[in-house]
Amino acid sequence: MPATRAAARTAGIRTALATVCLSGTLEDKLAAAAAAGFDGVEVFEPDFVASPWSAGEVRARCADLGMSIDLYQPFRDFDADDPEVLAANVRRADHKFDVMEKLGTDLLLICSSVSPHALDDDDRIAEQLHQLAGRAAERGLRLCYEALAWGRFVNTYERSWDIVRTADHPALGLCVDSFHILSRGSDPAGIAEIPGEKLFFLQLADAPHMTMDVLQWSRHYRLFPGQGAFDLSAFLGHVLTAGYTGPLSLEVFNDVFRQSDPARAAVDALRSLLALQEETADRLSPDARARAGLLELPHPPRLGGHAFVELAVDGGSTGAVERALEALGFARTGQHRSKPVQLWEQGDSRVLLNAGAGRAGASIAALGIETEDAVASTRRAQALLSPVLPRTRGQAEADLSAVAAPDGTSVFFCATGAGERGWRGDFTPTGAGAPDGPPVGITHVDHVALAQPFDHFDEAALFYRSVLGLRPQHSSEVAAPFGLVRNRTVSDQAGAVRIGLSVSVLRRGTEWQPGVTDPQHVAFACPDAVAAARAARAAGAPLLDIPDNYYDDLDARLAPPPSLLAEMRELGVLYDRDADGEFLHFYTEILGGRLFLEVVQRIGGYAGYGELNSPVRMAAHRRQRAASASGRRDT
Amino acid sequence: MPATRAAARTAGIRTALATVCLSGTLEDKLAAAAAAGFDGVEVFEPDFVASPWSAGEVRARCADLGMSIDLYQPFRDFDADDPEVLAANVRRADHKFDVMEKLGTDLLLICSSVSPHALDDDDRIAEQLHQLAGRAAERGLRLCYEALAWGRFVNTYERSWDIVRTADHPALGLCVDSFHILSRGSDPAGIAEIPGEKLFFLQLADAPHMTMDVLQWSRHYRLFPGQGAFDLSAFLGHVLTAGYTGPLSLEVFNDVFRQSDPARAAVDALRSLLALQEETADRLSPDARARAGLLELPHPPRLGGHAFVELAVDGGSTGAVERALEALGFARTGQHRSKPVQLWEQGDSRVLLNAGAGRAGASIAALGIETEDAVASTRRAQALLSPVLPRTRGQAEADLSAVAAPDGTSVFFCATGAGERGWRGDFTPTGAGAPDGPPVGITHVDHVALAQPFDHFDEAALFYRSVLGLRPQHSSEVAAPFGLVRNRTVSDQAGAVRIGLSVSVLRRGTEWQPGVTDPQHVAFACPDAVAAARAARAAGAPLLDIPDNYYDDLDARLAPPPSLLAEMRELGVLYDRDADGEFLHFYTEILGGRLFLEVVQRIGGYAGYGELNSPVRMAAHRRQRAASASGRRDT
Repeated sequence: MPATRAAARTAGIRTALATVCLSGTLEDKLAAAAAAGFDGVEVFEPDFVASPWSAGEVRARCADLGMSIDLYQPFRDFDADDPEVLAANVRRADHKFDVMEKLGTDLLLICSSVSPHALDDDDRIAEQLHQLAGRAAERGLRLCYEALAWGRFVNTYERSWDIVRTADHPALGLCVDSFHILSRGSDPAGIAEIPGEKLFFLQLADAPHMTMDVLQWSRHYRLFPGQGAFDLSAFLGHVLTAGYTGPLSLEVFNDVFRQSDPARAAVDALRSLLALQEETADRLSPDARARAGLLELPHPPRLGGHAFVELAVDGGSTGAVERALEALGFARTGQHRSKPVQLWEQGDSRVLLNAGAGRAGASIAALGIETEDAVASTRRAQALLSPVLPRTRGQAEADLSAVAAPDGTSVFFCATGAGERGWRGDFTPTGAGAPDGPPVGITHVDHVALAQPFDHFDEAALFYRSVLGLRPQHSSEVAAPFGLVRNRTVSDQAGAVRIGLSVSVLRRGTEWQPGVTDPQHVAFACPDAVAAARAARAAGAPLLDIPDNYYDDLDARLAPPPSLLAEMRELGVLYDRDADGEFLHFYTEILGGRLFLEVVQRIGGYAGYGELNSPVRMAAHRRQRAASASGRRDT
Repeated sequence: MPATRAAARTAGIRTALATVCLSGTLEDKLAAAAAAGFDGVEVFEPDFVASPWSAGEVRARCADLGMSIDLYQPFRDFDADDPEVLAANVRRADHKFDVMEKLGTDLLLICSSVSPHALDDDDRIAEQLHQLAGRAAERGLRLCYEALAWGRFVNTYERSWDIVRTADHPALGLCVDSFHILSRGSDPAGIAEIPGEKLFFLQLADAPHMTMDVLQWSRHYRLFPGQGAFDLSAFLGHVLTAGYTGPLSLEVFNDVFRQSDPARAAVDALRSLLALQEETADRLSPDARARAGLLELPHPPRLGGHAFVELAVDGGSTGAVERALEALGFARTGQHRSKPVQLWEQGDSRVLLNAGAGRAGASIAALGIETEDAVASTRRAQALLSPVLPRTRGQAEADLSAVAAPDGTSVFFCATGAGERGWRGDFTPTGAGAPDGPPVGITHVDHVALAQPFDHFDEAALFYRSVLGLRPQHSSEVAAPFGLVRNRTVSDQAGAVRIGLSVSVLRRGTEWQPGVTDPQHVAFACPDAVAAARAARAAGAPLLDIPDNYYDDLDARLAPPPSLLAEMRELGVLYDRDADGEFLHFYTEILGGRLFLEVVQRIGGYAGYGELNSPVRMAAHRRQRAASASGRRDT
């Protein structure tokens, strides 16, 4: 058992994972849950039924892995209006009690019925449950009753609690599941009033807000806490206030997790419970906090912005990226003392060009994040199960800590104000100043946008949210020319660090359109996008041409002032407006296969990213690629 | 212009495709629609806005391609309670009229409003539409008004027709969209009462039955006619009865089509309209049929069953497949006269082993379908745009026609009862008889199951349904160990030809679990699965072991007779029961990487496929692969 797990275990509250959360067979799932550091599991019956391991073997395996089996689930459609059906259900339960005894778990989940035989009579349900609890108790087993959000008659926790209270059997308690309760919009505050000893089990799941059938929503779109839209810290606060002392157990049905690497998903899952404990502790009284035994994390230090963005470039892409940076007004101000890395600067925006990363083309390799306490940031990342990256550094070079984000991007923690004593001291100044010509006027990095691997989109959102302490800003889906693209953005409160995550919802490995991949980009802020575009075009920047049709439509939709419209049309500047302000922005062409640069101007309180314009950008990038492909064919 | 297109065009009703149905840029979409043979397109505004082609250039391109532009769409949120908003909307419409004039299209789609400014006053809406129609008419343009299923106030075709009738302007008509009408459960029969000349446009889309928000359902899950669950031939019948003379136009928002090869999707789309015309013609009176000018297809001949299944085998898999067939009671009865193909037979089931297909491992290469008229079957397939495969045949060999299914499987049409004069005459008898030992008793091929490429699942269902004249049987989703699997089955009325199609809903190209691919299988029918399994095991068949846990759960769930349960447990036979009958079945291990065989027994009217058991089968196959992988590592 890893030391950290043992430490967490003695520290108080326990963690568990339903095997249904992960992909694979039961054997795969138990190994993954244990490796991530979970204290226990819920055994999901279909996983057990398909396993070649007997119940005794599963018990032994869990013991070897240092995990308890906290629950066997689900037992469906128990109560019945027909004595024959009820007798068959009791027989079925007896068979499952046999399994539980051999598994060495004492708790069975009973879901409220969806059967045509379901009772709409709480006293009779209570009576039937009381009898089943009696049979269970004879064998040292217990039952917890859960209201499914789509239960035929019993579908609220209030009603399930009434039934459990009426049944009044020590071997019968309640199971509360955040999804079933919050998906219906029920107020979870009432849970705090239920005696803690009758709360036998707690299942946690987050979910995005969706307008759809609650059964489908539950079966396909649940998420780990912090990845969706539910207020789970408030929910957990009520459960802990009630005096619940069982494990925090995740039950997440999710189509993506169902098919992605279970080892990765289990770490993501445990991270979600660590972050949730921190968030919940902040909302409890000191007394309740101490009693609950929630794990504590090093607090997230305040962030100061994007210290740098590191681009990996290869021999074929270096020239194009250098020319683009220069035409956008950057100067090559430094050369790393021991590595093939250049520093380019303009205002407070800094770009590292790393020719030694060994990656093809041009791509974003690392984000440098300014933090008021780099050591604390690193400790927090470690506590949240982020892989800390090994560093090779030369003598007298800055000791920068970095962790790996889910897509492999390195995240460096740079002490704000460390100046020459910090990472910039590793660079020998070139003495170069700003390029000739009118200034483009870039001031800082506005945001970085990273296309995520399909399996790790929600994991990435939770990583940035929890590790850096960012807040989810918004999510959207864009019907792009080559398929649906999902976006989520996270930022700190001040808007100094903004990160955009995107994923192609359905695009497969094999494309009908070769050469179209999901690009990444870095967006730089400036105070006047029209002037910046004019200066950059004059300097020969490879700016993306935007079709006239876009401006005709923009005129029809938003009617910007004619002179501004004419300038934007001339220069390829795009536009958006919302209730809070305006947004002007322009793009470069794709550089080195999967990277482009953007320059943005925010006016007023506009906090978006001009996503409405992204299909136009994608179609234009496609034309560029097609043109360069046909150019290659011509030569 | 291809000759067939010109022929279809003069034949009567015209076909059109909304550009939103396809993936890519406007340039890609127009090329794909024309290549498939569509007569016209609806230009979807976002496609045009993102295009570098001016309206004049788009018009010229469509003319070059021989296509008309039948509609420009959509114009949203026109009517307004606020004069300023209305004025802005009129200005916006004027800008779109400019575009339409240059595109050379005279019809604009006006959707019912979802805006906070929407009017809930039909007379005022009619008045505002009347005025806009007047502006349009001055420029020779027309408007068609469509009730969105989620329109804020106007969301039924009845209400939209009331408004159009009240507005009473010759340049204003109705657009009817099958999705908006059928998704709400409205009765489309009333359309037949609307004067045909006021039906300005018809948009067709199918969809699966789903319990979800209608907007999301519409935006993501629409299908081409014949791929979903709507009764579109009845719908179209009402529209034609009304006297509609415009094109049959497809407007299908679908996440998969949005990212798959547009050339393929456009052919699939046109096939759907051909099949729909046939189905609709069957429901119209002869008079109405003649007036409508629907295209006719060669009728589907009656099918006689699976004549053969051809397996492609390579050097590494041949032995395993031969041993499995032999142990299942097949005899090698023939050798092809000119090709490296063996014929194996048992009862009426025939398997060809083709060692010359050049495919790795073992897989299903072809289906031989018995038909009462092979020539008519081939003509029908061709008329439905199926690629007819070139054949190389030796002297005096049977002239078998084959077409390619969407996944590349060849479908051969074999004349029922042709006997030695047919394809079997190409094989030299070996003189071999049934193997020794107790008979397995296989009688015929029960079904063939083909895992489909992700992009072509719905296309495949329509292909088999239309080309072979099969009927959709059922669809399901299975939460399998490595991710969600979607199934659809099609069969002829007699159940002689059954084909199962499956697709991994989200699994990506790169797997965390190497070696797990979606397998195909052939299922053979027998009258006694327990006896068959006993005989096959005795003969050394590589049957799949099923875990004890499965039988314990089966006992708890369905309580089969203890003696049967014991036998099934001993032999690895699985079981299912429904209201119509029972199903017993067993599987071989995976042979040659992606193929397995199944033996099934149907009792009573059971028409399913034991899908509930498939996760158990998948987990067992995974163990077999893991074991053979570690065996390889050990040696």
